[in-house]
Amino acid sequence: MKVIDGTIASPLGFSADGLHAGFKKRKMDFGWIVSEKPASVAGVYTTNKVIAAPLIVTKTSVKKAGKMRAIVVNSGVANSCTGTQGLEDAYTMQEWTAEKLGVEPDMIGVASTGIIGELLPMDTLKNGLSKLVVNGNANDFAKAILTTDTATKTIAVTETFGRDVVTMAGVAKGSGMIHPNMATMLGFITCDANISSDTLQLALSQNVEKTFNQITVDGDTSTNDMVLVMSNGCALNDEILPDTPEFDKFSKMLNFVMQELAKKIAKDGEGANKLIQVDVVNAPNALDARMMAKSVVGSSLVKTAIFGEDPNWGRILAAVGYAGVDVPVDNVDIMIGGLPVMLASSPVTFDDEEMKDIMHGDEVTITVDLHSGQEKGTAWGCDLSYDYVKINALYHT
Amino acid sequence: MKVIDGTIASPLGFSADGLHAGFKKRKMDFGWIVSEKPASVAGVYTTNKVIAAPLIVTKTSVKKAGKMRAIVVNSGVANSCTGTQGLEDAYTMQEWTAEKLGVEPDMIGVASTGIIGELLPMDTLKNGLSKLVVNGNANDFAKAILTTDTATKTIAVTETFGRDVVTMAGVAKGSGMIHPNMATMLGFITCDANISSDTLQLALSQNVEKTFNQITVDGDTSTNDMVLVMSNGCALNDEILPDTPEFDKFSKMLNFVMQELAKKIAKDGEGANKLIQVDVVNAPNALDARMMAKSVVGSSLVKTAIFGEDPNWGRILAAVGYAGVDVPVDNVDIMIGGLPVMLASSPVTFDDEEMKDIMHGDEVTITVDLHSGQEKGTAWGCDLSYDYVKINALYHT
Repeated sequence: MKVIDGTIASPLGFSADGLHAGFKKRKMDFGWIVSEKPASVAGVYTTNKVIAAPLIVTKTSVKKAGKMRAIVVNSGVANSCTGTQGLEDAYTMQEWTAEKLGVEPDMIGVASTGIIGELLPMDTLKNGLSKLVVNGNANDFAKAILTTDTATKTIAVTETFGRDVVTMAGVAKGSGMIHPNMATMLGFITCDANISSDTLQLALSQNVEKTFNQITVDGDTSTNDMVLVMSNGCALNDEILPDTPEFDKFSKMLNFVMQELAKKIAKDGEGANKLIQVDVVNAPNALDARMMAKSVVGSSLVKTAIFGEDPNWGRILAAVGYAGVDVPVDNVDIMIGGLPVMLASSPVTFDDEEMKDIMHGDEVTITVDLHSGQEKGTAWGCDLSYDYVKINALYHT
Repeated sequence: MKVIDGTIASPLGFSADGLHAGFKKRKMDFGWIVSEKPASVAGVYTTNKVIAAPLIVTKTSVKKAGKMRAIVVNSGVANSCTGTQGLEDAYTMQEWTAEKLGVEPDMIGVASTGIIGELLPMDTLKNGLSKLVVNGNANDFAKAILTTDTATKTIAVTETFGRDVVTMAGVAKGSGMIHPNMATMLGFITCDANISSDTLQLALSQNVEKTFNQITVDGDTSTNDMVLVMSNGCALNDEILPDTPEFDKFSKMLNFVMQELAKKIAKDGEGANKLIQVDVVNAPNALDARMMAKSVVGSSLVKTAIFGEDPNWGRILAAVGYAGVDVPVDNVDIMIGGLPVMLASSPVTFDDEEMKDIMHGDEVTITVDLHSGQEKGTAWGCDLSYDYVKINALYHT
């Protein structure tokens, strides 16, 4: 597998575009990804019981059609908590896009992110749609889906399948809102591999647990979270089937793309200065290891300690202890940046200067060794800073 | 039931004392509660897998003896993550106290709160113990168990059982640490009712879920959390037996005492300016209602919104949605300070000035009406302020 300098339009047969339609004051706020032929499609959606209108529409269509031609996205207005009018508007967004591309509405995915409780301005939508082009600027799409994110988030890779080269690319938006009503995570992945929708869903589902579901900014789950994968077969490789070496290769590729996007989202969390990675190793099983890693990376006390650049092993061990995992905790080693701070559940002295350098970096890795098995799990998050409180306290409904 | 201006020593046959032994630099840091005769005893302990030494000792003795004569507590050093030496020290703390009172070691409960990873200074302990007196100053006990708490937390009530008056009192420490390695919650309740240890445990267990377990400051669970109840029978009432009107009366009394202590702890959370109460009403069952209330009061986004005095219904509804409770969320009303901000899951306009007054108060009540049943649940917490980040980021291990 090779990382390339690409965009969401790098896989064969895909294009993308982005522009300013007027959902926001000045910044780009509208875009689409288009596949020249119907693509296999797979999706995962928020686990929040409150589900925004565009997710209901997209989920229904993915299930019904099993193929997708385009994803259309606006930022600035989330079309969430908008009742039956909101649902109608999301369907209209889908229909208008389908008309423009001359395809069935069910072949269009729709997504929104931004302020909740406000209706989509449909004139703005119509105007934006009239200006979107096939074969537009894919970098503009990456910009158009952002809200309070401070940077675009893209990744592209290639991999050989026999004599064929398959390209996969991903783009995401993260944990900020133009008005931070809540953090929304959107991820879109394109690929030119030949793979069925069912097989694609299998690969997506088995990797989402280890990637997007392992990041946390503030523990709050949005009503609009969604990840969609389209794969259109333009690479002309032999179809990738489950339980084959090719599937494993494809799954690894997808895992890498999703993991890179997840890390970029965690690092760009509201008010974040540092990416925190927590590796729980030598655990009895992978699920427990992931739960424990997420417990540590989600602890407000650990997050503030990292912000303060303090190697606070006590808070880390406490978060290990309340993870809800039934593992002995009397023989735990904790390393920060590889430097042991706790061995066999007792604190050890460490070189202060060396630790200072580690804590001062913009990526801090915490390793928790349980000595209770051979499995591992990783989670990513960010520090909790004054700016997080500021961003989220100063906003007014 | 009548609230009285009392202390932990108000119930007949109890006394308490507190003093400065030297675990901390200047403030009081050592004390005890003594019953003149063996009291029935019940306890609940941290659910953290990492359990501090004093909890192991106390839990074992409560189980073994089923009676208690005294609880001895130090603040400043938590005796947590201290290995076998720490466990030995906790047993020594118990033995020395037992010797001084001339009772069996198993009749003594021990508790510690403060810095973790440090051994108890045993000379300081011995010195402190030599100065503690029976019939000392009960207000000093309330002070001696505090760490970064900004106020003592006590409550006392009386209730008649037939012709007898039963007195119950509680004292607690909350969510701050002298060095905020983690928040520890300690609660001690005394009562002069005639009740067996088993019946007392029944009453404690059924009320802890609705009170202490429904408060959250930052979601982190300490290794030292403990609640102990002693009831010595000095009121000479007829024994309170399960499944009787007297038991219900006693349980209500205990619930009130625990709830008042819980609210005082929540309000005095690190960096907190406001007490937040969340009432989930008309839920299909009480457990779901409590889970949902706790989800809302624990949301970092809701907590920062309350700090910013913003009536952010969107964040509240989102936290309702991700509580993990299977309840329809399309007909939810949300009131803040009684003023509707959302009806049938759609936002409604409200009087800005009236809302400003509500949000500006030092207690903010959020009501979530699910229209899905007749049960309710309440949780308490506090806002998330710059000071929380400051207190927890500036501490250095």
